[in-house]
Amino acid sequence: MKEETPTLTALLFGPDQKGLVAKTSGWIFACEANILHADQHTDLEEGIFFQRIVWQPRPGTDIERHLEAFHAFIQELGMQAELARSDVLPKVGVLVSKISHCFHDFMLRWKSGEFLCEVPLVISNHADLADEAAAYGVPFHHVPVAAATKAEAEARQIALLQEAGVDFVIMARYMQVLSADFLNTVGCPVINIHHSFLPAFAGAKPYHQAFARGVKLIGATAHYATAVLDDGPIIQQDVARVNHRHAVQDLVRKGRDLEKVVFAQAIRWHLEHRVLAYGNKTVVFD
Amino acid sequence: MKEETPTLTALLFGPDQKGLVAKTSGWIFACEANILHADQHTDLEEGIFFQRIVWQPRPGTDIERHLEAFHAFIQELGMQAELARSDVLPKVGVLVSKISHCFHDFMLRWKSGEFLCEVPLVISNHADLADEAAAYGVPFHHVPVAAATKAEAEARQIALLQEAGVDFVIMARYMQVLSADFLNTVGCPVINIHHSFLPAFAGAKPYHQAFARGVKLIGATAHYATAVLDDGPIIQQDVARVNHRHAVQDLVRKGRDLEKVVFAQAIRWHLEHRVLAYGNKTVVFD
Amino acid sequence: MKEETPTLTALLFGPDQKGLVAKTSGWIFACEANILHADQHTDLEEGIFFQRIVWQPRPGTDIERHLEAFHAFIQELGMQAELARSDVLPKVGVLVSKISHCFHDFMLRWKSGEFLCEVPLVISNHADLADEAAAYGVPFHHVPVAAATKAEAEARQIALLQEAGVDFVIMARYMQVLSADFLNTVGCPVINIHHSFLPAFAGAKPYHQAFARGVKLIGATAHYATAVLDDGPIIQQDVARVNHRHAVQDLVRKGRDLEKVVFAQAIRWHLEHRVLAYGNKTVVFD
Amino acid sequence: MKEETPTLTALLFGPDQKGLVAKTSGWIFACEANILHADQHTDLEEGIFFQRIVWQPRPGTDIERHLEAFHAFIQELGMQAELARSDVLPKVGVLVSKISHCFHDFMLRWKSGEFLCEVPLVISNHADLADEAAAYGVPFHHVPVAAATKAEAEARQIALLQEAGVDFVIMARYMQVLSADFLNTVGCPVINIHHSFLPAFAGAKPYHQAFARGVKLIGATAHYATAVLDDGPIIQQDVARVNHRHAVQDLVRKGRDLEKVVFAQAIRWHLEHRVLAYGNKTVVFD
Repeated sequence: MKEETPTLTALLFGPDQKGLVAKTSGWIFACEANILHADQHTDLEEGIFFQRIVWQPRPGTDIERHLEAFHAFIQELGMQAELARSDVLPKVGVLVSKISHCFHDFMLRWKSGEFLCEVPLVISNHADLADEAAAYGVPFHHVPVAAATKAEAEARQIALLQEAGVDFVIMARYMQVLSADFLNTVGCPVINIHHSFLPAFAGAKPYHQAFARGVKLIGATAHYATAVLDDGPIIQQDVARVNHRHAVQDLVRKGRDLEKVVFAQAIRWHLEHRVLAYGNKTVVFD
Repeated sequence: MKEETPTLTALLFGPDQKGLVAKTSGWIFACEANILHADQHTDLEEGIFFQRIVWQPRPGTDIERHLEAFHAFIQELGMQAELARSDVLPKVGVLVSKISHCFHDFMLRWKSGEFLCEVPLVISNHADLADEAAAYGVPFHHVPVAAATKAEAEARQIALLQEAGVDFVIMARYMQVLSADFLNTVGCPVINIHHSFLPAFAGAKPYHQAFARGVKLIGATAHYATAVLDDGPIIQQDVARVNHRHAVQDLVRKGRDLEKVVFAQAIRWHLEHRVLAYGNKTVVFD
Repeated sequence: MKEETPTLTALLFGPDQKGLVAKTSGWIFACEANILHADQHTDLEEGIFFQRIVWQPRPGTDIERHLEAFHAFIQELGMQAELARSDVLPKVGVLVSKISHCFHDFMLRWKSGEFLCEVPLVISNHADLADEAAAYGVPFHHVPVAAATKAEAEARQIALLQEAGVDFVIMARYMQVLSADFLNTVGCPVINIHHSFLPAFAGAKPYHQAFARGVKLIGATAHYATAVLDDGPIIQQDVARVNHRHAVQDLVRKGRDLEKVVFAQAIRWHLEHRVLAYGNKTVVFD
Repeated sequence: MKEETPTLTALLFGPDQKGLVAKTSGWIFACEANILHADQHTDLEEGIFFQRIVWQPRPGTDIERHLEAFHAFIQELGMQAELARSDVLPKVGVLVSKISHCFHDFMLRWKSGEFLCEVPLVISNHADLADEAAAYGVPFHHVPVAAATKAEAEARQIALLQEAGVDFVIMARYMQVLSADFLNTVGCPVINIHHSFLPAFAGAKPYHQAFARGVKLIGATAHYATAVLDDGPIIQQDVARVNHRHAVQDLVRKGRDLEKVVFAQAIRWHLEHRVLAYGNKTVVFD
């Protein structure tokens, strides 16, 4: 695993100031490392600088010390950093209910090597997908959720996720609202797929809402979950055309294809450390 | 003009019943006319039948009597009909303010023969586009609108539109809200282009709203104007991709291309008698 | 299965003549049947009339005699007809190699009820997907294909497909060219998914071809297989945006999503008897 | 004009080597200039480094000396550079025939301030658009082209373009093939809009070719013109959906909307110094 020098990825952001591009690339160059990709963005209104850098250290570098030194350097510049190394696979926790298309889509992409991650567990409020999870070789935990027991169920979910050491959680059409408490406590990002073009049709039964309104396009939105339902920073969205011949069940069917592709794209970007959320928005270095 | 037999188009709708397709096509066949196109739709939930038929009567047919007879026949079936003949061009009234891209787009398409209609007048609450209208050979009327004089201004607009005998009105980024009174009195459909993907971002400054929300797609919506702002039956919508690099003015610029194409498509469908509005929705026979 | 009266679908085509819509709908109405959908198209250049009608016979109708009578009636009109009843599921034969995304996508859609059909067998020139087919509950046949034994292999494939009574065959990224002999002998339509926007990049390694040409969009095309490679009537196409950052393997990855959706749409349309191929084109009544 | 310090844009490319990002950004930082945007790309297969940098020099900087020094620095690094300053508008020469939609679209965008450039002349092989050009305030030159006189006509075109000092030429549906001689002599890039999804349907009458093939999407392609017809580096492409109901003239009409938007996008990118052509491809820093 350590045979080849890993590549390192940094996501940086902080107050804009002159010379940041020169300073970060200069630091890396001074280490005789090789920048493979670099992309930056400045929010001129807010005065915030964002950067994603991918580099390969000189062979023989002590990676952990190198990353620590880089981190200290970034903090001196007044910026925050998320750092990742290519030889450590992120761990993804999966929440799912009964609807399975996003679940299978994620699992098949993962199995085929499209997603570079580990999947240590699947948690569901129903038992329906236990065998499917087992077929993919992933431990399955059935944590029923009822109104009266929601707090305990969420505590159990958090315990499982933290025990598994997940780096982020995906809600693969998980049909329960996660409480603000859950999101504050879980300690990692949670990506949700909502089956509408947000901010249109937030909340329950968005395809029914879309049908009632008579829109000519339906959508899907992948976003980070926040305490306000369907209101977190948007990572990716897409739409598909519908017409008067489409009943609600046609919208549901066409929407499934949207949901799968939008969700997978958001997961891929997050896995590749391409997404920086700030305020209610995201910067996506694609 | 009467040298060639015109084609006739009927838009029909009413309570569904067995045999409607057979009856309407049978009536036309019995007249020795030739059906060129026919398309129908049944809203099974509401029990409403919709049909668009295009046919060419036998040469020598007295068109007006033929249409009267058809209309009587349709009423006997309990349906309503909109009827049009290809040798009578619809008249379109244009409302515009200062922003000119939808105005020019419409005028150039019309001049190039893409829209088969007459354009008897342009009305604006500003004088800015007077010369441009003149260059297209269309009478221009400057009707200023102020809060205190809105009722009078609308009365003047209606008088001009009715005098010109318009069949429908288009709001080419006309930046005033038309009152319920106006819409009830004008007596013809009014098509608006709204610069968002409705129902998201109704009301003022939708691109600013979209920017603030951090959406990854912006949209445009052409709809029939109703008394509730930005809430009428949607005719056409489309979207374009944006990202974190786009400032509000980029959204505005990209949006202009969307608005032009969506607006033109809605106008074309309306001109070709392809749109039936019912409740808050449309059937578009495209 | 016979408890409810099935719906019937007819795909008709033949030389255009006056009154065809009236005649076909009149015949059905005369049987006291109820037309649920009807759509027609006339190729004015070629003088060909196409129609798709869906109707529900009067309860108690002898369906087979009814269909025979309809067929005879259509032949009298000089047209050809494909007839289907909703209570008889079409049988689909699957050809696949090693690449599995289209295979899994089809199977999962089928298992979830999105495709109303039977899948009596999977045939592959490799053994790799035997277990996966078994997990879906479908008999798997390994028929190796080598240059020297291609004729025998194809004979074996045809024997298996005909024995299973398939109504059509899908090539789920089956990586062998089917011979003209196969296509002439198999006696049913064969749907292929090609991983380019045909007619661009026909033949082998289309993503490599697309990369070399520097296109800004990649595509996928579902079409009926004919004796000329990648040249049959196109059923559906779609594209996705790429840029200079995408290597060939990114095109391959993005292309998989296109292939799945385009292939599934073509299969769905074929299953619903919405596609009429004529010459090198299709009419799709969607 | 010199009141505010202009921003400078550099497009760089050359053999990849370690430290290029650090060196270029370090040079600019050492001048106390402020990098506003920077984007880079490495073609790992070919070993070529590409970069676009936008920066604002310290107030009071002698811009021309600054650019000369930067240029010398870049050459020392073994790279080539295209340099531009925001206070010098590029000059665009327009070639057009009779078909006017791309011409009007370009002119209206330019007049509305969407394109920051000068338009010193329009050259056409027909006299039809003389008045329209005059209405936009641009000198119009009628240079007829016949098979026998093509060489002289091209010499005349080149003389006019060079006299006007154009930085690049756009072919706004100019219906003549420019000879290799013209392209070699004119000494600046030439952007063409082709009305198909290249490489499909190169050459004459692409919409007729697309109709005959029965494609389900039509396209448009903006590319740099090279000696091989419709084969130059592609800048932008897009597609629109068509179906069996669309006749050739419908493809032509729908295609016009594609052509306008694709052409405008390519021109905008070129004007903003976002496009680097190499081999038969482009890098577009969008």
